[in-house]
Amino acid sequence: MKHKALEYHSRFPKGKTKIVPTKPTENSEDLSLAYSPGVAYPCLEIEKEPSLVYEYTNKGNLVGIITNGTAVLGLGNIGAAAGKPVMEGKAVLFKKFAGIDVFDIEINETDPERFIQIVKSLEPTFGGINLEDIRAPECFHIERTLDANMAIPVFHDDQHGTAIICTAALLNSLELIGKKAENLKVVINGAGAAAISIAEMLTRIGVSHNNIYMVDSRGVINERRTGLHESKLPFVRKTDANTLEEIFPGTDLFIGVSVANVVSPQMLKTMAKNPIVFALANPDPEISYDLAVSTRDDLIMATGRSDFPNQVNNVLGFPFIFRGAMDVRAKIVNMEMKLAAAYALAELTKEPVPNEVAEAYGLSKIEFNKEYIIPKPLDARVLYHVAPAVAEAAVATGVAQAAYPGREAYRDILANIMAHQREKLIGAHS
Amino acid sequence: MKHKALEYHSRFPKGKTKIVPTKPTENSEDLSLAYSPGVAYPCLEIEKEPSLVYEYTNKGNLVGIITNGTAVLGLGNIGAAAGKPVMEGKAVLFKKFAGIDVFDIEINETDPERFIQIVKSLEPTFGGINLEDIRAPECFHIERTLDANMAIPVFHDDQHGTAIICTAALLNSLELIGKKAENLKVVINGAGAAAISIAEMLTRIGVSHNNIYMVDSRGVINERRTGLHESKLPFVRKTDANTLEEIFPGTDLFIGVSVANVVSPQMLKTMAKNPIVFALANPDPEISYDLAVSTRDDLIMATGRSDFPNQVNNVLGFPFIFRGAMDVRAKIVNMEMKLAAAYALAELTKEPVPNEVAEAYGLSKIEFNKEYIIPKPLDARVLYHVAPAVAEAAVATGVAQAAYPGREAYRDILANIMAHQREKLIGAHS
Repeated sequence: MKHKALEYHSRFPKGKTKIVPTKPTENSEDLSLAYSPGVAYPCLEIEKEPSLVYEYTNKGNLVGIITNGTAVLGLGNIGAAAGKPVMEGKAVLFKKFAGIDVFDIEINETDPERFIQIVKSLEPTFGGINLEDIRAPECFHIERTLDANMAIPVFHDDQHGTAIICTAALLNSLELIGKKAENLKVVINGAGAAAISIAEMLTRIGVSHNNIYMVDSRGVINERRTGLHESKLPFVRKTDANTLEEIFPGTDLFIGVSVANVVSPQMLKTMAKNPIVFALANPDPEISYDLAVSTRDDLIMATGRSDFPNQVNNVLGFPFIFRGAMDVRAKIVNMEMKLAAAYALAELTKEPVPNEVAEAYGLSKIEFNKEYIIPKPLDARVLYHVAPAVAEAAVATGVAQAAYPGREAYRDILANIMAHQREKLIGAHS
Repeated sequence: MKHKALEYHSRFPKGKTKIVPTKPTENSEDLSLAYSPGVAYPCLEIEKEPSLVYEYTNKGNLVGIITNGTAVLGLGNIGAAAGKPVMEGKAVLFKKFAGIDVFDIEINETDPERFIQIVKSLEPTFGGINLEDIRAPECFHIERTLDANMAIPVFHDDQHGTAIICTAALLNSLELIGKKAENLKVVINGAGAAAISIAEMLTRIGVSHNNIYMVDSRGVINERRTGLHESKLPFVRKTDANTLEEIFPGTDLFIGVSVANVVSPQMLKTMAKNPIVFALANPDPEISYDLAVSTRDDLIMATGRSDFPNQVNNVLGFPFIFRGAMDVRAKIVNMEMKLAAAYALAELTKEPVPNEVAEAYGLSKIEFNKEYIIPKPLDARVLYHVAPAVAEAAVATGVAQAAYPGREAYRDILANIMAHQREKLIGAHS
């Protein structure tokens, strides 16, 4: 794969995105509209009425994917420039799945306060900010501060993306096995960006906060731990267990956002009846899919891998969350909008799956069951379910600044966006 | 024109640029190369060898057009957001004329030091920085500081773009009338970003520094003036003249980068024999073309307007200067590169002009004479003359960091870039 991946990135034109004009530029008259003197008119209109920037520029469809390269993919602090391929890749996913234009911005600044000031100053450029691959715990403060100080939605996907997909998968898992969120014992291995957001969302669907045990690289976060970062303090629990193995017995839900192979078959056997395991370490999960399902036949298992059932993939979330949020000019992406995305994903899973989706995965049929608890990433219907749900939640919670046309009309708009893109993309890559 | 310009900007998709993938994204395998897990390979390669960011990302073809909106077009300090249409428009010109991808970045920061820190931090994102529409005198300090502290070329087009085109036009004017640069009396009306760079370039083609008189909104910069900004101090002259009118008699070259209608026919009559007037105020020049040429039949006249001969248009410069500079990975755009661009433009003007260029302007024939002293903006040959000249000057002055393939091979590369773009753009706008 290494050779293929490097060749994919380096062949002409290098990298993965380019800019193209959306308006004709063939002759002097075109250019006098695109630039001087015609361009003065939209400038003056925006100066008079600032919200017209959404009418005369690409701002309303433009997301900035912004990183400082401190926690890139599973690769760690490789720096802003080395993170650029990931950011370009995410830009491609935004476009492919939701028709959103993305500038990837790599910033050479690891100090959180200075990073915040830089990102804040970029507000006039973008319609939304997707913070990406910024290490914990700084990422919490960075997102919270920007969210409170910018008039456009700010969303740190590493925190909330995984949380939203996990929540959807959990809702369906519980329905399949007939358990209630209230009674679950939950263990989360990992205490970083994703883990803390997952824990927060789980409590919003009924999981008891005190039933969530978090385990970091030093063990279970319990009352004997010292020197904990403030982001972990809400998860201090009274328990004799110090290790992941010790906290495992009786667990109903294990979520791994950590490293490969830290869960053994023996540990799996100590879990409660009908256990749920979301082993999300990439590329190798906390326990391999095959080993896990052969150890417990009452298991519901999800991983981050595309080659096994139930892939928890953030691409099920971020393109549609931004699409819905920006289309009603939401000021923020609040918890209600995130939950709306999770519920929309869970509901869609239970609808009949079109044959072409199954075929795209080499399957004859896909049906709601233990091996299909969340939609497939290449299912084109996801856009039409998640984006409206997010937009409607923004309207309902009073954070939308533009009118919502109603679900059916909005779906038509979405279809137009995707049709335009599909048509215009023919031949655009080679 | 207002209605047409607003409609051009607001029709779907709003604004003037969009992002498209350059690599296939049709199926899971494509996406696993574009994003996780395949994207990890180029990231790791760049981490090991930082210059490979030019191999695996779009950095080498990516310019950031960066403004804080303090001096937009002729509109003044209208703010970062209201400047966005201009920046998108310039992005379109970069693409159309030189195949360069551009992110337009509007920054909400007017403090020069903080602006400098922000732009500097964006270095990992871009292959070059085009500073745009930043007011004088701050722009001088901002450009100088960024130029000295960034490893990619930084170029403030408002300063140097006009200077380069004016220099080219002057070289040809002098040839046509048989004057020497050494003996010229020069008056520049305006003392901002463009004026100071023009004066600097003129001295590099032989104009005597002390023969350049600069006039700002308070009059001639002479020894009786007080409270001058340091950027104007080199232009303090001993002269009895206090007003533009008083400094005019005997002037060989007048360059206006100021406002409409400040030069009268009477003033024009006091100029030296075979005078040269570059009246560049937009949209209305310091004296109208028709009035000027009907007043003096020995005049060479240029304006910023496309509807009269000799349009001084920055688009003859910036796309090709960045193309040449980035293609050899020049660390800076130095004076030698700027002069090389000016000389290349001047030389090209004297070559036979293809019929299709004349036709694009509704003319039967274009020949080197007083009404054609600089190339036409829609002349496709400009790329093939200016970009190689700039790249070669970068190599000759030791600022190039990548190999130059030789002029003929480089022209083939340029032709490939433009052919690819032309093909891929078919149908990309509607």
